[in-house]
Amino acid sequence: MLEKTTHMNSLFDFYQSLLTAKQKEYMEMYYREDYSLGEISEAVNVSRQAVYDNIKRTEKVLISYERRLQLYSMFTKRKQLITGLEEAISKDDTSTSLELIKQLKELD
Amino acid sequence: MLEKTTHMNSLFDFYQSLLTAKQKEYMEMYYREDYSLGEISEAVNVSRQAVYDNIKRTEKVLISYERRLQLYSMFTKRKQLITGLEEAISKDDTSTSLELIKQLKELD
Repeated sequence: MLEKTTHMNSLFDFYQSLLTAKQKEYMEMYYREDYSLGEISEAVNVSRQAVYDNIKRTEKVLISYERRLQLYSMFTKRKQLITGLEEAISKDDTSTSLELIKQLKELD
Repeated sequence: MLEKTTHMNSLFDFYQSLLTAKQKEYMEMYYREDYSLGEISEAVNVSRQAVYDNIKRTEKVLISYERRLQLYSMFTKRKQLITGLEEAISKDDTSTSLELIKQLKELD
């Protein structure tokens, strides 16, 4: 079973430029347009099993990219820090702002 | 001729986790430890031409990753914004700070 998770959707966002055209096509139908495996199979005229295998493999590829590059995890951390920073600036809390800037720098 | 540029060094920083062990080994010797091609050739007991070809190929791989993911280019832009932000916060310039926060958010 393939679970359509928002996590996988996000990984697809970050790493789609590294996928092949076919991997991208199936993932887009499955995750973006919310087709079922059966519907993709009909649309591209390939067996349901082949579609399943391709998507399953692509998911492993995406997970492996995230393990190596951590773009999604860094993005999430950065987003939190920027939100906190925006709040601190709005409150004129300079020392918190500078502390968050420090953390933001350390992230890269 | 291979030019040892800081640009290539930076790309290696960002994408080394996507390289094979051999690609990484040669790049490390060439770019980090500043070996010549001849010295690498002797150290790993492979022809100078093979070392050259491997490094040349790896550089193309790194350039292709940057074209797709733009991690280095984004890092550079983010760094500039964060430096400007730090200055604006130190000067209590709230409106500039919030504008830079906006740009930082748009980068992701």
